[in-house]
Amino acid sequence: MKLTHILEARQFKDAILREIFSLADEMKLFDKTNLTEKERKRCHKLKLSSQPRKKIMACLFYEPSTRTRFSFESAMKTLGGEVISTESAGMFSSAAKGESLADTVRVVSGYADVIVLRHNKEGSAKEAARYSRVPIINAGDGPGEHPTQALLDLYTINDELKRIDDLKIAFVGDLKYGRTVHSLVYLLANRKNVEFYFIAPQPVKLPEEIKNYLLEKNIKFTEIENEEGLEIVLRNCDVLYVTRIQKERFENEKEYEKCHGVYIIDSRHVCLMKKNSIIMHPLPRVDEISIAVDDDPRAVYFRQAANGKYIRMALLKMILDPENI
Amino acid sequence: MKLTHILEARQFKDAILREIFSLADEMKLFDKTNLTEKERKRCHKLKLSSQPRKKIMACLFYEPSTRTRFSFESAMKTLGGEVISTESAGMFSSAAKGESLADTVRVVSGYADVIVLRHNKEGSAKEAARYSRVPIINAGDGPGEHPTQALLDLYTINDELKRIDDLKIAFVGDLKYGRTVHSLVYLLANRKNVEFYFIAPQPVKLPEEIKNYLLEKNIKFTEIENEEGLEIVLRNCDVLYVTRIQKERFENEKEYEKCHGVYIIDSRHVCLMKKNSIIMHPLPRVDEISIAVDDDPRAVYFRQAANGKYIRMALLKMILDPENI
Amino acid sequence: MKLTHILEARQFKDAILREIFSLADEMKLFDKTNLTEKERKRCHKLKLSSQPRKKIMACLFYEPSTRTRFSFESAMKTLGGEVISTESAGMFSSAAKGESLADTVRVVSGYADVIVLRHNKEGSAKEAARYSRVPIINAGDGPGEHPTQALLDLYTINDELKRIDDLKIAFVGDLKYGRTVHSLVYLLANRKNVEFYFIAPQPVKLPEEIKNYLLEKNIKFTEIENEEGLEIVLRNCDVLYVTRIQKERFENEKEYEKCHGVYIIDSRHVCLMKKNSIIMHPLPRVDEISIAVDDDPRAVYFRQAANGKYIRMALLKMILDPENI
Repeated sequence: MKLTHILEARQFKDAILREIFSLADEMKLFDKTNLTEKERKRCHKLKLSSQPRKKIMACLFYEPSTRTRFSFESAMKTLGGEVISTESAGMFSSAAKGESLADTVRVVSGYADVIVLRHNKEGSAKEAARYSRVPIINAGDGPGEHPTQALLDLYTINDELKRIDDLKIAFVGDLKYGRTVHSLVYLLANRKNVEFYFIAPQPVKLPEEIKNYLLEKNIKFTEIENEEGLEIVLRNCDVLYVTRIQKERFENEKEYEKCHGVYIIDSRHVCLMKKNSIIMHPLPRVDEISIAVDDDPRAVYFRQAANGKYIRMALLKMILDPENI
Repeated sequence: MKLTHILEARQFKDAILREIFSLADEMKLFDKTNLTEKERKRCHKLKLSSQPRKKIMACLFYEPSTRTRFSFESAMKTLGGEVISTESAGMFSSAAKGESLADTVRVVSGYADVIVLRHNKEGSAKEAARYSRVPIINAGDGPGEHPTQALLDLYTINDELKRIDDLKIAFVGDLKYGRTVHSLVYLLANRKNVEFYFIAPQPVKLPEEIKNYLLEKNIKFTEIENEEGLEIVLRNCDVLYVTRIQKERFENEKEYEKCHGVYIIDSRHVCLMKKNSIIMHPLPRVDEISIAVDDDPRAVYFRQAANGKYIRMALLKMILDPENI
Repeated sequence: MKLTHILEARQFKDAILREIFSLADEMKLFDKTNLTEKERKRCHKLKLSSQPRKKIMACLFYEPSTRTRFSFESAMKTLGGEVISTESAGMFSSAAKGESLADTVRVVSGYADVIVLRHNKEGSAKEAARYSRVPIINAGDGPGEHPTQALLDLYTINDELKRIDDLKIAFVGDLKYGRTVHSLVYLLANRKNVEFYFIAPQPVKLPEEIKNYLLEKNIKFTEIENEEGLEIVLRNCDVLYVTRIQKERFENEKEYEKCHGVYIIDSRHVCLMKKNSIIMHPLPRVDEISIAVDDDPRAVYFRQAANGKYIRMALLKMILDPENI
């Protein structure tokens, strides 16, 4: 299947998901030692064509994110591609001189084969896609979406639980500004028999827009606010997805203080959970999951981060060199 | 011809210009699809030698400029070279600790084969060239020069109008601090039968030094201040070169406000222009050209930006690997 | 010998030093022109294996240092490796959002084969090594250590004086916060018959901890404060190692002013020195060595900087591809 822009999680239906996940599985070969001759040949084929020149990916990050940027850059370089990169475009580039995103994207699309855009304003990726001559990958647009994170999250669920349907998933933390939550909810809303629990302090509850989306699609979800409710959810869920309260999204320190630290997942919580459940986090974490939890086999967040590279390799291959898969 | 340092536009006489432009034309092959076997071989030859190691370009940017940096880096990587880069040397590097440019350049020239220098101080590139053991490319030195921009501007004129002599060219905007203007004027002053019009608010008129240069060379130029004069120029010019009023060059906000927005090129202006004329802009643009103009076939500024890569590829090839052209 | 983490200078004993230096010598081949066929083959072998993919080095710099970063990146790229890099992680990355170094390193070690860490906090490199799944190279941890600088310093001494034992070495400048001094002292303390002189203003004298280390190992050292003592030392020393008073380490401007400019090495000092002695500086320099000294054949600091690349190439090869040396 041909991929062009990656703008929102909703665009990924079952067939393309299967293709992405299967390709991501293969990408793990690149980190294996002692490859067989057959595997070595497969790796060679999985790399991006470099004729007559290597493909170039531009990272245009208006908001800093070393983790996401490193993940994309490592993916591109593992595939034998090249990268041009700015880690704080808002501060350093023409944006500071008053240039529109449309103009920036028109120019950068003359220098690269794909643009990875991280922006602080919701809707930026779609705006960019209107003006770009090359594919745009949305790497987070303000409180909007972060579709590649949702893909790696779902890929991790598949990896750990061997299914992406028939799931009970609980989201805890900042559900208002947490774009990874928004994207994963939209993505899971395409799946079969998924049930959602949303646990958030009042000021950062899930946006109405997303709840309406779930209601329209007739998908079961429950909002929970008290500790008691949380315990029932912990006993039942297959996936506990925790997010950081993002200080940088609050205009007012007091509002932040009201939300921060309300839900901290520690060993007491984890021991309530099912044996074959998993705990996820898009990272960075501050203190919303106690470090005592890190060694629990159900804590998969570092494996989840590592999966980011394989998912992004799969996406880049499908976008830039689909003829050679 | 052998190129070493690229410091100012004046250094490019006719023969070398022809060579650069012809090489830049060939560089477009790298972005062509479905190359013939012959073209593919030519691309291979146009790449930089990578024996015994790939060539390395250092981007030393004391002033941020994502556009120019991306253009150079994309050029270098398309040629199969490597890049080491800093996007805000003034803030991040030893300069902040008080190191002289001379020392920085002496050290960096041990790590790279060519240094692309963007600096906020006029004359920095020449200063750097005195101490560097490798070629210096001036990528803008304060209000000084920006010679590779002038080359890509002239290349664009040649591309669009099929000539670089016998031109009437009008410059509008910040002609005092606009180093791309300075460099292009110096470059065009080497050509035959070029006539200049300079249209700028009083505080940002063309420096006396450049006017004296034109007077000495007996080159025709006219300075215009009123809207009426502008209209006459628009009807007559072959090239309209618009620049941004650069807020960051003003120490005083009021002075900036006096200049900003005085000349805004919109559809009413463009409809006065000749059919086979062109509108250029070094970008970034703020509002000095209305976006309604973008779709006019005479608006060539995005093609102009794209040409930056090809010109820089040609220059890098001539500097780093002249034996294999 | 197998190298994993590079955390402190003390870890380098004689045998491994010899191996590193001999490999660094060979690395100079990459900058030679007109290689013989044998040399070309040796270069090919010295490059990092790129099967099934190129090795990736992550530069995680919480404190900016263009020089050190460029040196590592140039080294890695000369060896045919890839780099992902952040030049101000403290400001741009998840650290700003409150992530622990442990978490950052766990994540980044999923994207790279080696992590070069520059951090403002002493002990960070050791902390990182505890959590990383890939080797950590300490590229400076606050006032702690900078072991690769110590290695290139010692390599330079060997290059210039043809020995790394039987040395009289004088350190001048900031000996308290100067981590390059600390690392080189520790490294030299492993050698035979080395005698130290320490010359520093009162507020930035050598830490007690290091003096105690020398006392325990029964190594001769002298602390000097007055100009007269300095002159005697200059007449006697084989190596004069000058460091900058690091303004950024002082909390109080007045304390800095007391130290800055107390010892400025100029031609009058240099003419006292032995003919076959050398003057070193880790750079950047502000004014602690007068530029008049630069042309003296004993001033080796720019050659010293250039050696940084070869030492780092040797270390990267030993860490990432020891089977192919």
